[in-house]
Amino acid sequence: MHQPRIVIPLGDPAGIGPEIVAKALTDPRIQSSVRCLLVGSRLIFEQAINLTGADYTLPPFDPVLWASGAQHWAFYDLADVDMQAFHPGEVSALCGQAAYHAISTAIDLAMNHAADAVATPPIHKEALRAAGVPYIGHTEIFGALTGTPDPLTMFEVDGLRVFFLSRHVSLQKACQMVKKERIKSYVRRIHQVLCTFGEKDGLIAIAALNPHCGEHGLFGQEEMEEILPAVSALQKEGLPVTGPISADAVFHQAKTGRYAAVLSLYHDQGHIATKTLDFYRTISVTCGMPILRTSVDHGTAMDIAWKNCASPVSMIEAILLAAKYGPSFEGRII
Amino acid sequence: MHQPRIVIPLGDPAGIGPEIVAKALTDPRIQSSVRCLLVGSRLIFEQAINLTGADYTLPPFDPVLWASGAQHWAFYDLADVDMQAFHPGEVSALCGQAAYHAISTAIDLAMNHAADAVATPPIHKEALRAAGVPYIGHTEIFGALTGTPDPLTMFEVDGLRVFFLSRHVSLQKACQMVKKERIKSYVRRIHQVLCTFGEKDGLIAIAALNPHCGEHGLFGQEEMEEILPAVSALQKEGLPVTGPISADAVFHQAKTGRYAAVLSLYHDQGHIATKTLDFYRTISVTCGMPILRTSVDHGTAMDIAWKNCASPVSMIEAILLAAKYGPSFEGRII
Repeated sequence: MHQPRIVIPLGDPAGIGPEIVAKALTDPRIQSSVRCLLVGSRLIFEQAINLTGADYTLPPFDPVLWASGAQHWAFYDLADVDMQAFHPGEVSALCGQAAYHAISTAIDLAMNHAADAVATPPIHKEALRAAGVPYIGHTEIFGALTGTPDPLTMFEVDGLRVFFLSRHVSLQKACQMVKKERIKSYVRRIHQVLCTFGEKDGLIAIAALNPHCGEHGLFGQEEMEEILPAVSALQKEGLPVTGPISADAVFHQAKTGRYAAVLSLYHDQGHIATKTLDFYRTISVTCGMPILRTSVDHGTAMDIAWKNCASPVSMIEAILLAAKYGPSFEGRII
Repeated sequence: MHQPRIVIPLGDPAGIGPEIVAKALTDPRIQSSVRCLLVGSRLIFEQAINLTGADYTLPPFDPVLWASGAQHWAFYDLADVDMQAFHPGEVSALCGQAAYHAISTAIDLAMNHAADAVATPPIHKEALRAAGVPYIGHTEIFGALTGTPDPLTMFEVDGLRVFFLSRHVSLQKACQMVKKERIKSYVRRIHQVLCTFGEKDGLIAIAALNPHCGEHGLFGQEEMEEILPAVSALQKEGLPVTGPISADAVFHQAKTGRYAAVLSLYHDQGHIATKTLDFYRTISVTCGMPILRTSVDHGTAMDIAWKNCASPVSMIEAILLAAKYGPSFEGRII
């Protein structure tokens, strides 16, 4: 198997993106075993290299050398940032445009098999809007440019994988969205995602909504009326699924290897589990697309950008996770 | 300061209680720094000692020697289990009665200042009922026998302390219970609990109910309509309180020492955080009573009882936590 090839757009140039990418590439695990293709403004990245004191060189991207493996690392220069107009730490249309340009180029490269996966540093939603980009964030851009109507977000930390039945809705609304048809649809899609990771037998656990699984309907009916019937139906289809499992046990059990993935029933259920376990090493993976994308789960941190104090821990994990899945990933639209 | 004196009832004799207590007392930290007073059937405990191969002796409790400190450890024999009628691993009225007898004696001893705190192994609700005990569980027994109408449960693991605005209700119902008057009442009580631990300035963080604190009302109104007004009012009263803080950040921040305690807004919010962090070392502390009680957070495990395979990890932590708080605890009814 070839070494994983990860394409890394630089994110919003005014934020911490260039700096954390520059630092991440000093990680010995990445240096020894990941082929990195950076995409963005070379002038910006050289400033980040100078800022951080990193000492490595990135040859200009050459499609033939890259394809042959003769280039271990490379830089795809978009030459699109006017350094006179660039202001570190400030939201601007210039930087929003540069961020989008880098992402769309990275997606093109991955879609055309020049890379196995994309690992993204943060971008800024207001900068995107200022630049007139018609998408509100990363996931929407990836969805549109890969032709995926509804990408699936997965969190991973320490081998614990978590999917979400709903995300940015109120908790009351999320409770109302716990319906058997929705659960069935999500479990089928999660199963297909696990297949793209080569884990077709991976057991999917569904978290309970109510404390103690509702104690047989004593507090909450969703387990009996929605989750259990969905599990039965899915098992009849032959899918490896189990649940509901008490939310205070399911993540612990998954962490110890009992399940390949957990379907959490609302945003915070899975977020609390992963981010309390390890706030900085929780990585977001966008699944269900023809290509795989991993991402840091923090923002551009404009207030500390270009001060050489941003931590690359999350970026390193995002690159390593992309490298873990990338080569064996069999993309498909789910 | 004297060494902490912890009274330990044996729990339901048919369950894993006697065995995990017998094993816990072999822990070197407990042996060197905790004075343990066991309460229950001596015959039962001797069987547990034989089963586990522990080798220490416990002199019969002598009030004068115990009070003077001449007894480091002691056993308060209730001599209430007919060994002919005793069946390990079986729910019975005999054992329910013995469990209750040990707990009520332990409470008496603590209320009369013969111990600094109580650490409890598990009991069985059906056995209590079979014995005609008029309380459904530990917390109700402690509430009644210490004259505390509404004890407050706290979870602690790795220094992270979590309280609960609601517990055994459905998640939908828990959402409806997020009301400013309820939050104010709980924060005032938590503050009093922290005072009994000697932490009157301990900052209390209130978790958010909705993802990202509801993003200014975009998904969920509870942060703006209930939590923020409660925080303002409490701060005006001079209480050290902050929030709402996103639930995927607040437990991580508390773990790193930023807050003395977190008020979680529903059962699973705090349970997921603590039990995903460390399933076996999460200890339940019953607060707001004249005496302090810590407890394992697992059941009697009748299926594996008396087979010498139960882990004492949780019991050890419960005793150590009781020892941590006991000596400086200033009990009061809140």
